[in-house]
Amino acid sequence: MPVDPEASIEITAFDWVPPFARGLVRDLRPRWACEELGLSYRERLISAVDRPDWYFAEQPWGQVPVVRDGDVHMFESGAILCHLAEGTALFPSDPSARAVTLSWLFAALNSIEPMVFELSNVDVFSRGQEWALLRRPSLVETIDGRLARLETALGDREWLTGSFSIADIAMVTTLRQVETSGVLDERATLRAYIARSTERPAFQAALARQLEIFANAPDPRVPKT
Amino acid sequence: MPVDPEASIEITAFDWVPPFARGLVRDLRPRWACEELGLSYRERLISAVDRPDWYFAEQPWGQVPVVRDGDVHMFESGAILCHLAEGTALFPSDPSARAVTLSWLFAALNSIEPMVFELSNVDVFSRGQEWALLRRPSLVETIDGRLARLETALGDREWLTGSFSIADIAMVTTLRQVETSGVLDERATLRAYIARSTERPAFQAALARQLEIFANAPDPRVPKT
Repeated sequence: MPVDPEASIEITAFDWVPPFARGLVRDLRPRWACEELGLSYRERLISAVDRPDWYFAEQPWGQVPVVRDGDVHMFESGAILCHLAEGTALFPSDPSARAVTLSWLFAALNSIEPMVFELSNVDVFSRGQEWALLRRPSLVETIDGRLARLETALGDREWLTGSFSIADIAMVTTLRQVETSGVLDERATLRAYIARSTERPAFQAALARQLEIFANAPDPRVPKT
Repeated sequence: MPVDPEASIEITAFDWVPPFARGLVRDLRPRWACEELGLSYRERLISAVDRPDWYFAEQPWGQVPVVRDGDVHMFESGAILCHLAEGTALFPSDPSARAVTLSWLFAALNSIEPMVFELSNVDVFSRGQEWALLRRPSLVETIDGRLARLETALGDREWLTGSFSIADIAMVTTLRQVETSGVLDERATLRAYIARSTERPAFQAALARQLEIFANAPDPRVPKT
């Protein structure tokens, strides 16, 4: 879907991020869901470098995304995925299917992403610090154990639940954050899962739009001449 | 509610944990929700020390809780809270109130608990290791910044949303995990929030039942004579 300034759904995203974060910022999640669902959305871009004070009243940590949709104001990408996909095939209403979808959605965000956050911290934000060097082996061992369990749980199924869902959007966007860290190198099942997810036209459209914004933005760290 | 072996809802919990974890195991969350909602439940107790192989087919990481309720099988406490409270005052159906509740539920589990996990790792599971000693100051600084934002967001309200909800159950059980770490010492607003939450009779009943199980269990680490 092309971005539509008249759309009811508004996604707040950053107007610029450093190259290493491009394609990984979490507004990718609602963008992907909107593309899967054929929902148009408008954008509100804010500065990641100089986050406006007023924004913390909408998002307590100053992060993106925030989504506004009429009277509905939400933060946290997991919550936003639930709202956008409510009652669709991406988040079914049948109690049994819904329960499995919710279980895997929370698994991505509470059982996998916390370790992913810390590995990104070790490898990127705190790179070279002594604690990070000392911490990495045990952290990788913990992640490896969990990813092995995730591979077993996924097995030969295409998606985490019976069909593609918001749980896959959350899990794949989580796993993509550590694609270059090495922890997925021996995980052929998970790499194939990421590949078939990111081949989806909806993902490609969402990614292209996030990258387009950054490609067109001036680097705010460079003093204006 | 007294535990009822004939109840439809079944909560899987551990039959024994070491003293430091008692009152903090995450089956406390569905127990608390059931008590708030007047739902009876039955228990299935498994070993935390020697987790049965078959259990990983139900819970990919071998953790508790798992909840079964007729055809509904769920893992991840956030998902379980959504299921148990669906359509009640703890998880309202009105789209605007629902959006706020979901936002704070995910905030507890994806924006606060990941740091809490790591602080518990530093202070308990990896206590004394060199990386943990070196890591602690920056981790505490990060947590402190986030808890300051949480205090601002809570302000002088009693609950995270307009009324007590599953978001409060998730947030309070998360904060309780670091009550003795020092990060809450200067956070009077959050300590008052935890106090009024844990004074609720439903919390007290849930906590009492978890502690009762452990109090009555033999220590599985002591060889039988």
